[in-house]
Order: sequence, then C-alpha cells, then structure tokens
Amino acid sequence: MDQHRELLTQLAKHNANNSSIVSSIYEYFKNEAITILKQDLKNQTSKVPLELVAKHYSNTILLVLKWIFIENHPLSKREAMEYVDELLGK
Amino acid sequence: MDQHRELLTQLAKHNANNSSIVSSIYEYFKNEAITILKQDLKNQTSKVPLELVAKHYSNTILLVLKWIFIENHPLSKREAMEYVDELLGK
Repeated sequence: MDQHRELLTQLAKHNANNSSIVSSIYEYFKNEAITILKQDLKNQTSKVPLELVAKHYSNTILLVLKWIFIENHPLSKREAMEYVDELLGK
Repeated sequence: MDQHRELLTQLAKHNANNSSIVSSIYEYFKNEAITILKQDLKNQTSKVPLELVAKHYSNTILLVLKWIFIENHPLSKREAMEYVDELLGK
C-alpha cells in the first residue's frame, strides 16, 4: 500500500468520495481482503461464521484505509495497523 | 427492530440488495447508530479517534443486520447481540 500511497492520495483528491472510481477501488480491495482473510481465518474457533468474520475484518481494514486516504487523516503504516488491531479488540 | 422484523424481511425479499430503498434504509440506520454510539462512547479512552470507533461499531451492527435480513440468515436478538459482541472483541 505504501508504494501506491501517492497515487491513492491523488486519486482521492481529484475524485468525489462517492464517484465510480473510488467505489470500484473500494469494492476491489474489500473483496481481495475477504478472499485473503477467509484463508487466514479458516482455523478460527469462533461461534460467528467464517464468512461473517472475514467480512468484518475486511470492513475494518477498509474503514481505516478510507479514514486515511479518503477522509484525509494521514497515518503511518504502524499507526494504521494499531488502529485496526484496537478496533478488532486484539 | 423485532417489531419491524416482518416488514424488513418482506422489504428485503421484494427489493434487490443494491436497490435505492435498501441503500437508503442502510444509510439511515448507519447514521442513527453513529449518532447514538458517539454519545455512548464519549468516555472511552482508546487511542483511536471517537469518530472512527463510532463508525466501526455502527458498521459492525449493520453488518450483522445485513447478514440477518438481506443475506437471509435468521438469528434471534440474543444471537445477533452475541455476534456483535464477539466481532467487537468484547
């Protein structure tokens, strides 16, 4: 994500938050994240179904990315990961 | 929510998940939840900004409601609340 930070920042600056390109990129990242997370989480022993946990994790990551890039609150990678961990109660 | 369960189920059945009415109701609930949660959470001592925590809680509640009503996985109120607590790491 770091290597594309400049591109994402420019993209967010020049396109409305509800524009097609921002929505498409959002959906793309969300679905990529769900696919990866379902693999990572498959040994979890939660009562909550895996599909729902993966969606929740993906939503949380995307919420923080949106906060940084779309809503313009610059954070370092480490801070972003701390936010995600704290939100997920880790 | 229980008293409107039948209405919401019918609504979900007869409208596409990406239809305007479903999106409007989703956004309405999300914003109501953010307003309530910001009040409830205002004494929290998290490193993560209140606005972001409130959005995260609201997203999580909406994710579970969407799972139940839109994606058609019937759950009791108690089960739904257990799911939300577990996802939020409570």
